[in-house]
Amino acid sequence: MAKELKDLTKRSENYSQWYNDLVVKADLAEQSAVRGCMVIKPYGYAIWEKMQRQLDDMFKETGHVNAYFPLLIPKSFLSREAEHVEGFAKECAVVTHYRLKNAEDGSGVVVDPAAKLEEELIIRPTSETIIWNTYKNWIQSYRDLPILCNQWANVFRWEMRTRLFLRTAEFLWQEGHTAHATREEAEEEAIRMLNVYGEFAEKYMAVPVVKGVKSANERFAGALDTYTIEAMMQDGKALQSGTSHFLGQNFAKAFDVQFVNKENKMEYVWATSWGVSTRLMGALIMTHSDDNGLVLPPHLAPIQVVIVPIYKNDEQLKQIDAKVEGIVAKLKALGISVKYDNADNKRPGFKFADYELKGVPVRLVMGGRDLENNTMEVMRRDTLEKETVTCDGIETYVQKLLEEIQANIYKKALDYRNSKITTVDTYEEFKEKIEEGGFILAHWDGTTETEEKIKEDTKATIRCIPFDSYVEGDKEPGKCMVTGKPSACRVVFARSY
Amino acid sequence: MAKELKDLTKRSENYSQWYNDLVVKADLAEQSAVRGCMVIKPYGYAIWEKMQRQLDDMFKETGHVNAYFPLLIPKSFLSREAEHVEGFAKECAVVTHYRLKNAEDGSGVVVDPAAKLEEELIIRPTSETIIWNTYKNWIQSYRDLPILCNQWANVFRWEMRTRLFLRTAEFLWQEGHTAHATREEAEEEAIRMLNVYGEFAEKYMAVPVVKGVKSANERFAGALDTYTIEAMMQDGKALQSGTSHFLGQNFAKAFDVQFVNKENKMEYVWATSWGVSTRLMGALIMTHSDDNGLVLPPHLAPIQVVIVPIYKNDEQLKQIDAKVEGIVAKLKALGISVKYDNADNKRPGFKFADYELKGVPVRLVMGGRDLENNTMEVMRRDTLEKETVTCDGIETYVQKLLEEIQANIYKKALDYRNSKITTVDTYEEFKEKIEEGGFILAHWDGTTETEEKIKEDTKATIRCIPFDSYVEGDKEPGKCMVTGKPSACRVVFARSY
Repeated sequence: MAKELKDLTKRSENYSQWYNDLVVKADLAEQSAVRGCMVIKPYGYAIWEKMQRQLDDMFKETGHVNAYFPLLIPKSFLSREAEHVEGFAKECAVVTHYRLKNAEDGSGVVVDPAAKLEEELIIRPTSETIIWNTYKNWIQSYRDLPILCNQWANVFRWEMRTRLFLRTAEFLWQEGHTAHATREEAEEEAIRMLNVYGEFAEKYMAVPVVKGVKSANERFAGALDTYTIEAMMQDGKALQSGTSHFLGQNFAKAFDVQFVNKENKMEYVWATSWGVSTRLMGALIMTHSDDNGLVLPPHLAPIQVVIVPIYKNDEQLKQIDAKVEGIVAKLKALGISVKYDNADNKRPGFKFADYELKGVPVRLVMGGRDLENNTMEVMRRDTLEKETVTCDGIETYVQKLLEEIQANIYKKALDYRNSKITTVDTYEEFKEKIEEGGFILAHWDGTTETEEKIKEDTKATIRCIPFDSYVEGDKEPGKCMVTGKPSACRVVFARSY
Repeated sequence: MAKELKDLTKRSENYSQWYNDLVVKADLAEQSAVRGCMVIKPYGYAIWEKMQRQLDDMFKETGHVNAYFPLLIPKSFLSREAEHVEGFAKECAVVTHYRLKNAEDGSGVVVDPAAKLEEELIIRPTSETIIWNTYKNWIQSYRDLPILCNQWANVFRWEMRTRLFLRTAEFLWQEGHTAHATREEAEEEAIRMLNVYGEFAEKYMAVPVVKGVKSANERFAGALDTYTIEAMMQDGKALQSGTSHFLGQNFAKAFDVQFVNKENKMEYVWATSWGVSTRLMGALIMTHSDDNGLVLPPHLAPIQVVIVPIYKNDEQLKQIDAKVEGIVAKLKALGISVKYDNADNKRPGFKFADYELKGVPVRLVMGGRDLENNTMEVMRRDTLEKETVTCDGIETYVQKLLEEIQANIYKKALDYRNSKITTVDTYEEFKEKIEEGGFILAHWDGTTETEEKIKEDTKATIRCIPFDSYVEGDKEPGKCMVTGKPSACRVVFARSY
């Protein structure tokens, strides 16, 4: 592993290669035998589990419950909602048969042509259709509303170009699907969940995000409004990290889901959907990590503290073991996840490199002199700074340090992000600046034509029309940098993952 | 709901219909638009989540980690292990295409014939093949072993006759897949996980199980030994509730997974796999529930205590609200999940019936007189007994009661199960007794022929060769009830789900 670490590509050499190397070498994920599908390895999955647990708690605190809907969707469901089918029904995995049989030449198994399905089934690319078909039976009256369901599931989209975590054919996600009696309530819900995502990204992932609404062109297929959180990676590119959709009555109409409202009139139900996926792993990795490997935020690190002994002989190791045992217990009592690695088949230097690569936030080392002096060497992964600290009360020292690291990597990411937000007033300047990466706040005339021209010319897209102000005057009206037509406020442009 | 409850079929009338009614009326699950696939509704999913959380903790305590492997398996993988393909490659969902396109007649979408896969992909019926293909790259030396991975996932088997939770085309499960350097270690692991399942069933589900080993005929396809936990439902039928397989080196050989052992020689890796699924929901429901609805074990009940107020007017309700608030806080402080249902759009009688149907273990009621007397009426769901109890210290009273209910429903199920275990020495008697349901301990000559004859004649199968003794002398040798040939010990026969 120490050797492998040396092979980690540097960010400055090739950012994209650095990312791929890191995901594989840090044992987060790898390509599988199935094109575009990844294996999420135990260490990567442990981070995802931490994310899941936290998000799930936040969903439940906001009144949501979990449920589970079928993996397979009848083909005809996809075409019920006109825009949805355009967005989703194309690149997907199609189940056409339900049986295999032995090949007559003994070469293995073949598809049994007699077992052809009457209607093909699609592996869910997202579940609006099957869920709204189900909700039809759950909703009769306003008293049945709201329905606030979430589902943790795998989904499948036949992506041509895939990258571990960022874009894979199969990925894991959660999808919330809510049903409401009024438009206002549904709109509030969509915003509420965007804010949950924003809070999760910033407080737990330590990833600053720009919250805003998508342009019509970038909307989810079937939504009236798509809200988004946009993070900035270290190469200045945007990563859409979570979206929340106000779906209006589109799916209710497509699946004929009506209810009797308080005025005793039939009305179509209002809907939202919202999701985050294993793509968040990509955002987490790319925001904080460095040329030595992962840097994990303490709030999501599976191992928050690793302790490594340095010893001359078995006797000394035993003494260190005994001393460390008490420290481990004290750390655990504070809810800190700690690993004591006294395995004797790896040298300390190897362990150091390995835990750096894995992004463990705090490393404690105890050697012979430390034992004598009742001290430990503390290293923080974010800055790689070392200090020697007394063992007395080291658990509270570490507890504070973990919070400090959490705050520090957030601030570092925020400072970087803010340093890469610029305003631009002419298209010429835009074309120049976009090459440097970062978010560009510019005026746009609100048309899809202009948006697409910009994308064609520069590969940049409108990431969102932000809710908040990032630069003085960015909420004031102006003129589109391309057409000179009036613009209500500046919007965020960037190249993106 | 109160009305619906009246429609619940009685167990004595039609046990099978009672089960189906109960699953639907208690809002646990329902059929979906996709044949054989169910929707797990929020209340049902909440129970499953509790099961998952507990099992996951137990897996982690025994050193396992979670990971995630692809949903789709290349068709050729299934035929690598000869027995495995016979068992699994037949009734499964086959993905043949990766794109849809608009129908030329505008009628929706059709499969794009140009997007045919070179090799078909199968939705995993179980993941041994894709996982062992992955492990090949993870294992070089004995130092890479053991690998102790678990996966929480959905799987798909094209079942012809399906029943909610008990047998569905898609179901949720966990599948553990471990790799070991020695045969002994793998065998120990298979037994260890069977014991974890047994402990979970008995301590959390309150379902007594018979642990044992399957006959060759009932083994998992590709296993050298399959261990099982067998529960008995209230109709006397067996429900296989979890299995753990010692796979020998079969999958290692099929996927060429070798390692350098401590003696520096190449050797094939030893394997186990083990799983429990949403089928456990069926076992839970059928073991404890009654004609009034679900009876849930407190250790897995999403709502352990429900509190219902009975009031004459708003003022009285406010007084009760204030009083109950303190009790709710005290219960929550003890880690008890409690719901206070003071909704004013349903009458108390409706609420009572609904929470009985939903199996909430303890119901507390506070009326006007209770308010005066500082008391509450406590009802336990398992016996439907009521008592009036002082509010002082009611939280510890309830805490103890929950444990008592947990113990009581286990004992009730155990007593019933034990009362339905009989021994039989002649085949004539067997044919008679099997009609009464229950587990029959009988001698068998160890051949598949005899086993299949018994199955054909009586629909009974060998559930397992039990580890423990259930009736005096059942571990002593005897003569097969069918052929008269020698038998080492009695085995458990039953009809089963």
